[in-house]
Amino acid sequence: MQLLAICYLFEGLSESQMQHLTGIAKETSIQKDQWIFQEGQEAKQFFVIKKGAVELLTKVDDKLELPIAMLRDPGSCFGTSSLSAPYVYSLSARCTEQGSLLAIEKTELEKLMQEECDLGYIIMTNWAAHLLDRLKETRQELKIHFKTLFKSMHS
Amino acid sequence: MQLLAICYLFEGLSESQMQHLTGIAKETSIQKDQWIFQEGQEAKQFFVIKKGAVELLTKVDDKLELPIAMLRDPGSCFGTSSLSAPYVYSLSARCTEQGSLLAIEKTELEKLMQEECDLGYIIMTNWAAHLLDRLKETRQELKIHFKTLFKSMHS
Repeated sequence: MQLLAICYLFEGLSESQMQHLTGIAKETSIQKDQWIFQEGQEAKQFFVIKKGAVELLTKVDDKLELPIAMLRDPGSCFGTSSLSAPYVYSLSARCTEQGSLLAIEKTELEKLMQEECDLGYIIMTNWAAHLLDRLKETRQELKIHFKTLFKSMHS
Repeated sequence: MQLLAICYLFEGLSESQMQHLTGIAKETSIQKDQWIFQEGQEAKQFFVIKKGAVELLTKVDDKLELPIAMLRDPGSCFGTSSLSAPYVYSLSARCTEQGSLLAIEKTELEKLMQEECDLGYIIMTNWAAHLLDRLKETRQELKIHFKTLFKSMHS
């Protein structure tokens, strides 16, 4: 299962740390159109793609679904809301091409990170860097909207 | 310096961990209208407010500054870009009321977190939870803009 080593969250882990992580990952198959989880549900699991494709999306309202990302590269991960309080999925995930995932239970990962805090420190450092990157991207998009609005008000 | 204990990043640290952290914090005074740092600069320090007020802002373009937050509560922190790669301030910080700050050097904090990974794990866990919260908030704002745009296109 060298697959986990591709995931950005686990960059920098030693070989023995990777083995402990692999020990808590379970393989599960997914079918086309299957909802893996829905926005708002308790985030109990974290997933890494082994095969197939998964779409992440959010509901703007009842009529409008906004696609956020399409994941198909092995090693791509999702369900990261299970890594941080309040442990609620902020997006929905739907399988668009059948395949298989590695699933890691939130409770088991948390236990491992607490027991081996050097492993926990590395994972959380990677996770925070990723979140900061996403936050900057999203703020940039918001800035563009704001700029457009400002221009339309003053033109 | 029980001040650091108020900051959300250090929630859950033991008394001895707090002492080690206090050991690397240095008090510095700030004057009205002083720029503490500017957006885009290398993020070398992290700050906690002791007294006075600091405004965080971003430049939309040369003519337009967008205020993001006004910090005046003791224990409020900023300059958190120094906690995660690529270590670049994403906002500017300007003092709006003279006072004093506790400054922690990025390199010293990183050294402490690596040496005491249980402390590092707690701080990074708090930081990631905060970032996830901010990201959800910003995505929510973007959703509202998108909804408004969608309605205006279909009305």
